Amino acid sequence: MSTETIEQQFAEQPAAKQPPVTNKLVIFAWSGELDKIWPTLILATTGAALGKETTVFFTFWGLFPLVKNQVRITGENWMQKMLSVMNRGGDDHLKLSKMNFVGAGPAMMKHLADEHKVASPHELLEMAKELGVHLIPCQMTMDLLGLKREDLIDGLEEPAGATKALAEAEGAITLFI
Amino acid sequence: MSTETIEQQFAEQPAAKQPPVTNKLVIFAWSGELDKIWPTLILATTGAALGKETTVFFTFWGLFPLVKNQVRITGENWMQKMLSVMNRGGDDHLKLSKMNFVGAGPAMMKHLADEHKVASPHELLEMAKELGVHLIPCQMTMDLLGLKREDLIDGLEEPAGATKALAEAEGAITLFI
Amino acid sequence: MSTETIEQQFAEQPAAKQPPVTNKLVIFAWSGELDKIWPTLILATTGAALGKETTVFFTFWGLFPLVKNQVRITGENWMQKMLSVMNRGGDDHLKLSKMNFVGAGPAMMKHLADEHKVASPHELLEMAKELGVHLIPCQMTMDLLGLKREDLIDGLEEPAGATKALAEAEGAITLFI
Repeated sequence: MSTETIEQQFAEQPAAKQPPVTNKLVIFAWSGELDKIWPTLILATTGAALGKETTVFFTFWGLFPLVKNQVRITGENWMQKMLSVMNRGGDDHLKLSKMNFVGAGPAMMKHLADEHKVASPHELLEMAKELGVHLIPCQMTMDLLGLKREDLIDGLEEPAGATKALAEAEGAITLFI
Repeated sequence: MSTETIEQQFAEQPAAKQPPVTNKLVIFAWSGELDKIWPTLILATTGAALGKETTVFFTFWGLFPLVKNQVRITGENWMQKMLSVMNRGGDDHLKLSKMNFVGAGPAMMKHLADEHKVASPHELLEMAKELGVHLIPCQMTMDLLGLKREDLIDGLEEPAGATKALAEAEGAITLFI
Repeated sequence: MSTETIEQQFAEQPAAKQPPVTNKLVIFAWSGELDKIWPTLILATTGAALGKETTVFFTFWGLFPLVKNQVRITGENWMQKMLSVMNRGGDDHLKLSKMNFVGAGPAMMKHLADEHKVASPHELLEMAKELGVHLIPCQMTMDLLGLKREDLIDGLEEPAGATKALAEAEGAITLFI
């Protein structure tokens, strides 16, 4: 649903300005850490499995898990290069927000999850694609980090901005993770 | 509301596929730190006091405040045991996400709150129960951490998963904290 | 919309207890760090530009960016004074949640943003006011920190509590950031 459509709808239907509740789930995935990628993708795949039209808008740190493992963020200037050292893309080395100081944290949690049959972020991303979850990278974040479309994994939708994300969010279950 | 009910509703009422806005508040409580437990429980008790059907779904780190103070998370293997050392259950020693590095942070904030008559997490949990807030522990997190129902405080509802949480969230005010 | 209005509405219209979806966006701004202030204000200004009635409820750490730059939080007791050292108000020295340990993080990101024409938090706050975003400071947080109305920047609405924020959130797109 584009912004124009919404505005036109309001212009043309003055008696029914309230948009309806939709059977949608829209997640603003701002965090790039393993323990937040998990709930993002578990909720997204569960929502899609329940028949909800589900969108995940990956923004800021949340974009990093979508960067190809072999790609390092390479910017035009020293600042983007510094960022690229601090935040390597890809989902093989996601940090765990709380326990990273001990180093063992992420490996430990992944191992725990494996034993208990909880899917990995990589598996969950694949499952999300198969279930038709709309995976949208944030254009502004891509610009900030000097990322091009081909630096991101396959199966994503066109990059978009906050306007698109908010249009989708109307009447939906909305979560900022 | 079970998933089946929703799907049946859609199957039986093709002309009204949009679920209505409900007078509900559903909080996904992912964080276990004191400064996030506070808004979770203040918003939940306020919502319930306003007459909203209020549900808090405690998942991941958010489950820790529901673990009995005398219980330490004891797993079957070394990894769960490591986790148990790093995250002692119960609400007596919750950390404050930003200021914990100085150690004095949580005690200081609790003291500040006491002087200003802000309820403690323990009091807020009791108040939430009295107001009929649905307090639901996440089954998957319990499995991950090797926790049993009797390791958690009393007054909680049956453990459930993301399906139940998303079903409740439909048409509700939804917050991921 | 006041709480009383909602309750009256329910009392007077027993046949239509479900509130409608509103064309609103309500953000609970809990975080005071630069990388969370950005999405808060980018989403708020975008929402307002799209014609949504947009409210940002600044609570807990989220209140700090609203404190005048020249004001340091000065409490009646040693605890509030300690807090005031740890969290200087104003938006000139907001931390970046992940990269602050290197010190260069916030300056680097601001510089990156400048080059890419992303507005600063200060500019975004001004833009939000011009677009009619309702900027509401949390009364309880102000009390906790010993802040008075005149310690906060101009252009804010009356301080309020969780009751007001939840009343606004009904039927809105809701995000806890």
